[in-house]
Amino acid sequence: MSNSYGTLFRITTFGESHGPAIGVILDGCPAGLEIDEAFIQSELSRRKPGQSKITTQRKEDDTFKILSGVFEGKSTGTPLTIVIENQDQRSKDYSHIENTFRPSHADYTYQAKYGIRDHRGGGRSSARETAARVAAGAVAKLLLKNSGVTISAFVSEVGGIKAPHYTELNLANTESNIVRCPDDATAEKMIALIDQVRLDRDTIGGVVTCVIKGSPVGLGEPVFDKLHAELGKAMLGINAVKGFVYGSGFEGIKLRGSQHNDEFYNEGGRVRTRTNHSGGVQGGISNGEDIYFNVAFKPVATIMQDQRSVDKEGNEAIVSGKGRHDPCVVPRAVPIVESMAALVMADFVLRDRASKL
Amino acid sequence: MSNSYGTLFRITTFGESHGPAIGVILDGCPAGLEIDEAFIQSELSRRKPGQSKITTQRKEDDTFKILSGVFEGKSTGTPLTIVIENQDQRSKDYSHIENTFRPSHADYTYQAKYGIRDHRGGGRSSARETAARVAAGAVAKLLLKNSGVTISAFVSEVGGIKAPHYTELNLANTESNIVRCPDDATAEKMIALIDQVRLDRDTIGGVVTCVIKGSPVGLGEPVFDKLHAELGKAMLGINAVKGFVYGSGFEGIKLRGSQHNDEFYNEGGRVRTRTNHSGGVQGGISNGEDIYFNVAFKPVATIMQDQRSVDKEGNEAIVSGKGRHDPCVVPRAVPIVESMAALVMADFVLRDRASKL
Amino acid sequence: MSNSYGTLFRITTFGESHGPAIGVILDGCPAGLEIDEAFIQSELSRRKPGQSKITTQRKEDDTFKILSGVFEGKSTGTPLTIVIENQDQRSKDYSHIENTFRPSHADYTYQAKYGIRDHRGGGRSSARETAARVAAGAVAKLLLKNSGVTISAFVSEVGGIKAPHYTELNLANTESNIVRCPDDATAEKMIALIDQVRLDRDTIGGVVTCVIKGSPVGLGEPVFDKLHAELGKAMLGINAVKGFVYGSGFEGIKLRGSQHNDEFYNEGGRVRTRTNHSGGVQGGISNGEDIYFNVAFKPVATIMQDQRSVDKEGNEAIVSGKGRHDPCVVPRAVPIVESMAALVMADFVLRDRASKL
Amino acid sequence: MSNSYGTLFRITTFGESHGPAIGVILDGCPAGLEIDEAFIQSELSRRKPGQSKITTQRKEDDTFKILSGVFEGKSTGTPLTIVIENQDQRSKDYSHIENTFRPSHADYTYQAKYGIRDHRGGGRSSARETAARVAAGAVAKLLLKNSGVTISAFVSEVGGIKAPHYTELNLANTESNIVRCPDDATAEKMIALIDQVRLDRDTIGGVVTCVIKGSPVGLGEPVFDKLHAELGKAMLGINAVKGFVYGSGFEGIKLRGSQHNDEFYNEGGRVRTRTNHSGGVQGGISNGEDIYFNVAFKPVATIMQDQRSVDKEGNEAIVSGKGRHDPCVVPRAVPIVESMAALVMADFVLRDRASKL
Repeated sequence: MSNSYGTLFRITTFGESHGPAIGVILDGCPAGLEIDEAFIQSELSRRKPGQSKITTQRKEDDTFKILSGVFEGKSTGTPLTIVIENQDQRSKDYSHIENTFRPSHADYTYQAKYGIRDHRGGGRSSARETAARVAAGAVAKLLLKNSGVTISAFVSEVGGIKAPHYTELNLANTESNIVRCPDDATAEKMIALIDQVRLDRDTIGGVVTCVIKGSPVGLGEPVFDKLHAELGKAMLGINAVKGFVYGSGFEGIKLRGSQHNDEFYNEGGRVRTRTNHSGGVQGGISNGEDIYFNVAFKPVATIMQDQRSVDKEGNEAIVSGKGRHDPCVVPRAVPIVESMAALVMADFVLRDRASKL
Repeated sequence: MSNSYGTLFRITTFGESHGPAIGVILDGCPAGLEIDEAFIQSELSRRKPGQSKITTQRKEDDTFKILSGVFEGKSTGTPLTIVIENQDQRSKDYSHIENTFRPSHADYTYQAKYGIRDHRGGGRSSARETAARVAAGAVAKLLLKNSGVTISAFVSEVGGIKAPHYTELNLANTESNIVRCPDDATAEKMIALIDQVRLDRDTIGGVVTCVIKGSPVGLGEPVFDKLHAELGKAMLGINAVKGFVYGSGFEGIKLRGSQHNDEFYNEGGRVRTRTNHSGGVQGGISNGEDIYFNVAFKPVATIMQDQRSVDKEGNEAIVSGKGRHDPCVVPRAVPIVESMAALVMADFVLRDRASKL
Repeated sequence: MSNSYGTLFRITTFGESHGPAIGVILDGCPAGLEIDEAFIQSELSRRKPGQSKITTQRKEDDTFKILSGVFEGKSTGTPLTIVIENQDQRSKDYSHIENTFRPSHADYTYQAKYGIRDHRGGGRSSARETAARVAAGAVAKLLLKNSGVTISAFVSEVGGIKAPHYTELNLANTESNIVRCPDDATAEKMIALIDQVRLDRDTIGGVVTCVIKGSPVGLGEPVFDKLHAELGKAMLGINAVKGFVYGSGFEGIKLRGSQHNDEFYNEGGRVRTRTNHSGGVQGGISNGEDIYFNVAFKPVATIMQDQRSVDKEGNEAIVSGKGRHDPCVVPRAVPIVESMAALVMADFVLRDRASKL
Repeated sequence: MSNSYGTLFRITTFGESHGPAIGVILDGCPAGLEIDEAFIQSELSRRKPGQSKITTQRKEDDTFKILSGVFEGKSTGTPLTIVIENQDQRSKDYSHIENTFRPSHADYTYQAKYGIRDHRGGGRSSARETAARVAAGAVAKLLLKNSGVTISAFVSEVGGIKAPHYTELNLANTESNIVRCPDDATAEKMIALIDQVRLDRDTIGGVVTCVIKGSPVGLGEPVFDKLHAELGKAMLGINAVKGFVYGSGFEGIKLRGSQHNDEFYNEGGRVRTRTNHSGGVQGGISNGEDIYFNVAFKPVATIMQDQRSVDKEGNEAIVSGKGRHDPCVVPRAVPIVESMAALVMADFVLRDRASKL
């Protein structure tokens, strides 16, 4: 029951890292949407391994196949299924963890919860699963384009190196460098740090910032399914995420209400706010301003160093990373963050259709 | 569709601030649980207005009535309904916002989404709704007590004044002062600040930290319904919350993987971790260590000062807080945070029963 | 988890027969709907006990109170809560079944499933719960009226006495007699039979037929949530129901495909079918023709006669009906059938809004 | 949102008749279940086309592939995905219905609801989708075997030719003839009738009876998700089904309560009923007796004769069946009925785990 997300625009993902394939069923995509397959592929390629020197050197092309739900290029309203076959698996790289738990991985908890686990490549807990989300997220983006909504994420911090506030950046610049930070000077420093960490056989964390522009007023369901609560859940459901803030976040705590409140004004017939500490969401509902939030990613747990651990029987054991891994996950996390945001927004666009008579 | 929360242990809340009553249906409470009504009342009293000089001076006793689901003191497995009648309403205090939108409130977005709103006291968007959550959360706590799980929240920051890390505090001390910070010295400073802010006719934000001890290993559903993702959604669904972090949160970004990873060891037959940057959750599943997280609350939007806004017709308008409001929400938010955490944990306890053969 | 019904237009009911109250939260009612309280009351009165000589002589006025979700006469989009206080309870009438299981009642299965049960008046298993459905169903009818959909149920059989096919009846005549059969001659015979059965201290079953006119084309979700599958589930969820058929039902089995198929034709630009064996539903989706179905109700289980049974300890016991009960449930079931049908249709009207771009 | 079924043991199916593949994700299968692939294949083979002279002569092997959720022969608790590639498609057989609506098919309603449809082989509305249900149902049967529950369906009527009551039949005999009626004499007549109908280029309807033995007491959720209500929905969600009755069904209407009630007695410490008009379900909860129900299937809509219809533009048109179709659907429906019943029962077995403390 943990493998579905969304209420009306709803995905169910499947697949293990070293099984035959991963994939997703998208149920609830409205009929009549043009499914741009080249766009889906380009999104998958933004996430795929091996795309630069600062990502894992595993080679997975992540080519996909649509099994259902599309007819003559358009969605039909039936479940849209996308499958990505697994390739370049080196399951032997994982035989050392068949019986031993990697620190800060999901090995121990899966074993405890289910009494059985597919240890190869982390099995279901592998971030490979997020490729399925990116494929479905691409369809969500296509739907949102119709409503004028655009979603742009970028790397805003790596291990203490921070980019300026998003309002001072040209977000169109994000894809111009391999770390996906739109500020070139900051990007350079980030890349140097990641490269150093990699040489140290270590890893480092970072922050992805996401900005949603053009949202209609009225998206989000107040009380439990607030727009930012769903965005938060969606982000916290991504592997390695440790925190979510939107708008003023933890910084806003220090402000007085008189400083923090966003005053309304009338801009040519449209209600606007002068500031945007609210992050585009008030009472759980979008107010038409930019929606923006930050997502914290911990340092990748797999490091190329010996670490102390225990095995299934509770014996002390030494475990060391093998295989090919990312020294820092945030550059590849950018399209994942965008995809999950797109899935949330697409769902709320559909849910909002039932709000009024 | 926004008024229910939980999968198996599921609540649906109802009610507006100035309607006849608010309440909750708790569906899925296992049969046979002793329902300690005095405990429910004590939890409601921790949240109720008017409990100290630093909270709103509204007087609401928040006495409750159980309408169903309990027979001879025990839950029967049928829906457990709790109703709290509204009292001491001064709806006239709100006539000035019938047509005008309060900055950083939900007035504008409700109006835009629904085309109609009950403006009195904020209607459905009022934090009064959270009393229903606290009542249901009390039942969740009773259920969790059976599994040895305890949940303790406290105020860890008010406007920049921070308490020490939870591991250095005696959490049993939380209720000993009106700001609910277990460190008395810090509490004093917090109270002074809130008092000053109140005299300034202004408001201030803060942080609530929550610690869950005694969780069984194996709670949480990996992928989308990760334990921390549901906790995050639950917290972000509380009024005025701007951010959620667990474990190392945004601080962990700066660490290397070799510093951040929590090594396993065997403590008398039980698998433990030496550090707990994971915050008790790995791969979305509890590992038996303390689960802890921070929740950021913005400064209360209602201030006793003139602010610029617009009315329904888009005309410029001045709006000023009337009525009786909290200068800082975090002391009363403590039981709300605990309640939502309890609801999440109770739900996962039940969901986990279906994990294995 | 059994107390909610619907996806977008969703009800959750609560309450036991002899508890303080029963009621319903309707979540997902679109904002802006005029809530005609007199209509809700009239619907409740059609279901209430004591309305004629052939129903139970219990006197319950079933007056209701709206606790939330309505402002100045209109729905606001927030949960709409309706409560009906219980009155005229004679719990002592049920002390004989505290430890003994009534045949063909839910006493034994509740006890086995939950280990505890509120035996008074049947507790949660009492058909009194359906009053909450009728209240919510009345709101659904108000919503459907906007879409031109009308729902008419009537008694088409009592213990072998059958009314003509609905197409030969004037459905406006249903409320003209106490058995709610629009054919007066048949109604007379039905009433005589029920009266005789009552004098025999026995009970008898019957059939309610329901006709939905004016449905838009396109309602229903194919595959699992077919329009008729949801109608079937809704009907089978009513107390005492043993069967559901729509369109040609079990009769259609004997026809050849060439006889059974409903040929299409063009009636002034609208696609129509010449016959309607499909019962207005094809592939799980409404086709614009009348939707009609039959619902079988068993004889009421409570009879004023001695029956053999066992008690909680497994000892043989004699149990005999006490209190005031219906000799035949179908006259009062008519508004319940309509209400459940209305809830299903309202839900599909909202769900269909997300079908296309 | 229509392509998922179940609460905890939950399937989502996908695929069109003439697309690359159909399949199912089963989410919520408990970990540790041995997945017997040969059994899954044997179940699929019971449903597959071309198995005898009285079924369609299409040849589809319906071999399947497991893409996820199984490790070393056991379920892991992660989503279990089964894919069946489509073969032997003759899409050209369907070009005549690209623009014309087949009577009593879903062509018109899909077109109206979605504005687009994959007409080839009926697309998503094809009963080919049920192969995915049978695959998942086989896994459900494996789970139920652990609880001692067995499910046996058989053909009890074809076009007026009826088998004796199930209690007079040897259900182990069902697979001994091609029509799947355990009474050989009746089977012979049924086969002769179907053969005649086929030669007439026509079709005929029938009834499948299903018997569930060994159910634990306590399955089913009272109120809306009654055991029989979910069984009803599951059956009515199968293509061509027109009605569902359980226990005494429509026949029970004619009985008096004193005849219909099932008296309890103590059989060696186990509570039993002397008769079983209840069909093994009381108050929506299983009572441990046999659960039995009948499902009505209409005559197949595709006939090899000219029929009048209209095209997309509303013009009159003649449509005639092409391709290879079943003259009577019930023999192949037997495993589908069993599968849906198994899915319902497996779900309730898991849901019941949360009923008590």
